[in-house]
Amino acid sequence: MAGPMTLAQIVARLGGRVAAGADTLIHQVASLESADARHISFFTGKRHRAKLEATRAGAVIVAPEAEGDTARPRIVAENPYLYFARVSQLFNPLTAQPPGVHPSAVVAKSAKLGLRASIGAGCVVGEEVEIGDDSCLYPRVVIYPKCRLGKRVIVHSGAVIGADGFGIADDNGRWIKIPQVGSVRIGDDVEIGANTTIDRGALDDTIIEEGVKLDNQIQIGHNTRIGAHTAIAGCVGIAGSADIGRHCTFGGAAMILGHLKIVDHVNISAGTFISRSILKPGTYTGIWPVDEHDRWARSAAWLRRKGKQHE
Amino acid sequence: MAGPMTLAQIVARLGGRVAAGADTLIHQVASLESADARHISFFTGKRHRAKLEATRAGAVIVAPEAEGDTARPRIVAENPYLYFARVSQLFNPLTAQPPGVHPSAVVAKSAKLGLRASIGAGCVVGEEVEIGDDSCLYPRVVIYPKCRLGKRVIVHSGAVIGADGFGIADDNGRWIKIPQVGSVRIGDDVEIGANTTIDRGALDDTIIEEGVKLDNQIQIGHNTRIGAHTAIAGCVGIAGSADIGRHCTFGGAAMILGHLKIVDHVNISAGTFISRSILKPGTYTGIWPVDEHDRWARSAAWLRRKGKQHE
Amino acid sequence: MAGPMTLAQIVARLGGRVAAGADTLIHQVASLESADARHISFFTGKRHRAKLEATRAGAVIVAPEAEGDTARPRIVAENPYLYFARVSQLFNPLTAQPPGVHPSAVVAKSAKLGLRASIGAGCVVGEEVEIGDDSCLYPRVVIYPKCRLGKRVIVHSGAVIGADGFGIADDNGRWIKIPQVGSVRIGDDVEIGANTTIDRGALDDTIIEEGVKLDNQIQIGHNTRIGAHTAIAGCVGIAGSADIGRHCTFGGAAMILGHLKIVDHVNISAGTFISRSILKPGTYTGIWPVDEHDRWARSAAWLRRKGKQHE
Repeated sequence: MAGPMTLAQIVARLGGRVAAGADTLIHQVASLESADARHISFFTGKRHRAKLEATRAGAVIVAPEAEGDTARPRIVAENPYLYFARVSQLFNPLTAQPPGVHPSAVVAKSAKLGLRASIGAGCVVGEEVEIGDDSCLYPRVVIYPKCRLGKRVIVHSGAVIGADGFGIADDNGRWIKIPQVGSVRIGDDVEIGANTTIDRGALDDTIIEEGVKLDNQIQIGHNTRIGAHTAIAGCVGIAGSADIGRHCTFGGAAMILGHLKIVDHVNISAGTFISRSILKPGTYTGIWPVDEHDRWARSAAWLRRKGKQHE
Repeated sequence: MAGPMTLAQIVARLGGRVAAGADTLIHQVASLESADARHISFFTGKRHRAKLEATRAGAVIVAPEAEGDTARPRIVAENPYLYFARVSQLFNPLTAQPPGVHPSAVVAKSAKLGLRASIGAGCVVGEEVEIGDDSCLYPRVVIYPKCRLGKRVIVHSGAVIGADGFGIADDNGRWIKIPQVGSVRIGDDVEIGANTTIDRGALDDTIIEEGVKLDNQIQIGHNTRIGAHTAIAGCVGIAGSADIGRHCTFGGAAMILGHLKIVDHVNISAGTFISRSILKPGTYTGIWPVDEHDRWARSAAWLRRKGKQHE
Repeated sequence: MAGPMTLAQIVARLGGRVAAGADTLIHQVASLESADARHISFFTGKRHRAKLEATRAGAVIVAPEAEGDTARPRIVAENPYLYFARVSQLFNPLTAQPPGVHPSAVVAKSAKLGLRASIGAGCVVGEEVEIGDDSCLYPRVVIYPKCRLGKRVIVHSGAVIGADGFGIADDNGRWIKIPQVGSVRIGDDVEIGANTTIDRGALDDTIIEEGVKLDNQIQIGHNTRIGAHTAIAGCVGIAGSADIGRHCTFGGAAMILGHLKIVDHVNISAGTFISRSILKPGTYTGIWPVDEHDRWARSAAWLRRKGKQHE
């Protein structure tokens, strides 16, 4: 994390090109609407043109094709949003918590914590857990015994890693619990959102590969594998033993049945329910589009009648 | 919170009219089914007529048009359900926790707590947080740094306010984290349910206006605004930068995409996925209605065939 | 929990029949893929035949009709999956936590804990709570005042039992909170997943009957009743005052409206939204099937046009 920097200094560290105002001193990032002369902002497309014209930002990051859209001090970069992410990392820490174990955390003696690991207030870290260097658990995270987290992993408050998977067997109408003897393995550079849950495996491990990004309130069932660099938005549920590829994206509240395979580079739209394997990269969708209630009711009634005619 | 009261005393405080039994002494509220002579209950409609006839309640709250439906001691009020809410508030506290900070809570020295604020066991309140007068955090709430809560805010256990929003930028297949430098501002008289999560803004703040009521397990993305007096049922997800109006209601498990606008006085039905802005007040729905599995399968197959014919 | 056992010893305790290798010594259970000579695994169907042929398991549990499918040491049982569950219980404890109250837990003096109850780190147990013999709360569970849990109940981390139900009354555009004076009653042998929430009743109690199994991130609204031996997968939401029968199963992310009845022996498919009572046993479904995005868009547009023609 750095102090104030000029556009020239930023470009010297991150690349890109200063189109105007190389000496402009920047203290922090901000949105086009709320920025003032101390801030740098970014412009990604025509729908924000009015905001660009009205901004009081000290400088703006623009794409080459938008270089002439403003006269403000500016940096030209191929991907302004990505460049902005890197600038923001110059001015802001990635996590808001110092290294070390908060005195109110409960960490088992057999747990192994990496260098500079940060364990927040009220966390509970179970027996034989391993947490890699520079990882950060925000307050009130629970890691059940034997789970392993890589380096630079960020886990937000309320997440629960390694609770028992939902394994039950029917014994004439009564459910017999199946002990969950697997664990959870989480790779480097994974981020896990608030109140997300990742279950331990029934027999083998649940696996979250490196670079996976999980938003809040996601549920990942036992023995699922999430391939590297896949990003999953909030409220997604993934049932047990799903095998999810690398470089996938799942929109919010998508739901994935268990025991299926999704190959690399699949994009699942928000709200979509996946009930079968997806073996071809691409974008997949399945939602009933919203309508005014009365019109929806007519469509729904009509579809049900039609379906019934085929009986 | 008061001791036992007669119907006459209740009416003196809350309005309405005693139709019979002004001296009946009431100790507590109850449902028609479980009430006995010490209880007051309420009757809201014909589908509960059998319960009204069978009740042993000491008194009942009824609407003017139902005044003759029972001979029991009763109070007549325009809106029996609302009146009942007020009566229940006479006999019961709004929160079950005394003011003050529980010794097991971790509150940053730089946090500002209002008068009579109640911070439950195991809560974590971060640096520079502000919590208004008479607010109550139940056990194990986490408030990340710099978030501000108004007066009379109630937050239930497991809620997480101010975790990082889901901000990532694609760098050739790897995700770069965008620091989340905004915060969360919550107005007066807001209630937040158990295990609900409200993310801090990426640059500007996430805003929950006064009088908003949020049920359990709701996820609110970064930079969303929820207008005043909107009520949202459980399991709803709202993606980032949504702009939700005032006096809206969202049924359970509704899902709202980000970067869209919903105007005031919109009702979203339970289970509905909102993928576009709603610019006209009204009720909106979009769910596939449940059916016996075989009949559903025929409707679904038929719709897919029809869609395919248009290729 | 036992030490190593031979197949003969296992059959002596659990029934079934040894088809080969009665003296084979077993130390633990494992999947067909990861097992070695110390492990026993199970085989449930033809889709796993290749795994059966490749396994290095010391022994396998098979159904009578599959007795000849392998030459390995094996136990023949009518229901191999159920038998495997029982074998796993021989080698593994049902919960990973010792009896007693962890010093960091906050337990009200008026709470009553049964024999051998285990209260994990950071749990909060409110006034007048009752917890039965041999029950286990994993770290960071919150039980609000007056809730009652039966015997052998397992509650995973982050679960919240007894937070206020979502009870509000409309007072000319402002919401008036209705105190939630009921409680939660949970029967024997119930398991509750991580970050699941069960609200206390508005007036009467919310009831979870014996043997119910709840996965993670389930929300159960106030005054709901879940009948005995019903199993509910992750991310399900059940609104208030639902009356759910015995021996039902709900797939993941199913959503159930309030004030409705579901009879015994109903199976709700994953992702299905239930908006009306289900009065006949059977399997019920209602999801828009996933499709490639463009094909879905055509189906959706076509359905909306058709619905509109009926205006």
